[in-house]
Amino acid sequence: MADLSRVTGVSVPMIKFYLREGLLPSGERTSPNQARYGQEHVRRIMLVRAMADYAGLSIADIRDLLGHLDDPRHSLHDRLGHAQKTITPRREPGEGEEWAAATRGAEELIARHGWLHDSDSPAMRTLAGVLLTLEGLGYRGILDRLDEYAEAAARIAEADVASMAEEPNLERMVEVVVVGTSLGDALVAALRRVAQANVSARLLGEVLRDPACEEPGPGGPS
Amino acid sequence: MADLSRVTGVSVPMIKFYLREGLLPSGERTSPNQARYGQEHVRRIMLVRAMADYAGLSIADIRDLLGHLDDPRHSLHDRLGHAQKTITPRREPGEGEEWAAATRGAEELIARHGWLHDSDSPAMRTLAGVLLTLEGLGYRGILDRLDEYAEAAARIAEADVASMAEEPNLERMVEVVVVGTSLGDALVAALRRVAQANVSARLLGEVLRDPACEEPGPGGPS
Repeated sequence: MADLSRVTGVSVPMIKFYLREGLLPSGERTSPNQARYGQEHVRRIMLVRAMADYAGLSIADIRDLLGHLDDPRHSLHDRLGHAQKTITPRREPGEGEEWAAATRGAEELIARHGWLHDSDSPAMRTLAGVLLTLEGLGYRGILDRLDEYAEAAARIAEADVASMAEEPNLERMVEVVVVGTSLGDALVAALRRVAQANVSARLLGEVLRDPACEEPGPGGPS
Repeated sequence: MADLSRVTGVSVPMIKFYLREGLLPSGERTSPNQARYGQEHVRRIMLVRAMADYAGLSIADIRDLLGHLDDPRHSLHDRLGHAQKTITPRREPGEGEEWAAATRGAEELIARHGWLHDSDSPAMRTLAGVLLTLEGLGYRGILDRLDEYAEAAARIAEADVASMAEEPNLERMVEVVVVGTSLGDALVAALRRVAQANVSARLLGEVLRDPACEEPGPGGPS
């Protein structure tokens, strides 16, 4: 178990916790105080960490998800659907005229790009919720650029699906959909922040500098 | 207060909680049992909701952030830096050969795209952490397409910075950086899921269908 901890970077007490919680199968017992752990234990621990760290799932969610992924009684279709539901934040549909307008806005955006979609999916509801909030806060700049965001998302989705299609079997594909989507969100969010810093350093270096700490430039505060 | 609740969609007990927690300034008292709330209260409530729902911030974080944004004693530069720290997940740098390799991988990716960046920023650390996890889980498909993800992130960042630059003043720019970045993550994540469904429906409809529920095709399970 000390070796397992060293290889995965997860502490021994945490590994014991995973074993107790049923997130990790027991090792092969070689003596009363020793067990042998293999490559599948290393991988499972990394999977649990990825789900907790990047998908932000609770231990209960992870147990439920792994139980479903492992259970041969469920069809792959069912496993995929269950997995997608677990990683997608549940948002209730809203009410009133503003919500209806945001839903129409989401539909129109997707229609402009000609995407096949399910109007009732959690992702479409989240999209409507984000549009409603952007509208409420008056962030016109973002609302005026929704097509640019949609084009970037389409490129990401093409890379996602192409990655998934290379996996050797359906079980791995389901895993990549679940863990890869969460890791992919974290990847895109991190790249976006690094890219923001680059763009703002190039274009807006002057604007973002603190006027109080700088020599005032032409037209700057005195 | 009932009007405020109706307009914002936030319940009266929740508004009272925000007032108690100092997230919302008091209304102008018009009688012992009545207070007048204005447009700035509506906006502040939507801002608190957006930070909680999309940035996933705790009440303590939101109070801290709003306190900083509101406090004229802090310079704008300081307010921006503080805000970015609050919304960026704290990740400790890792150890060992694998971490060093992941850090090099992140640096090389950014260098290929010629982005100005700070190697020690939280976003670069998150990027290295994601690459390490993708490597550990053997998701080659995603690792082989990092440049595609980076190009999409660059397009998103250009839209982000262009949106921010349109805001009328630095206070609003800081707000857009904080709330807009979190909302933007949610926007991109939602669009990505809708786009994934489109791409997989077009390319992989057959693969993703549950073999147990379908007529077996040529080469399918019998």
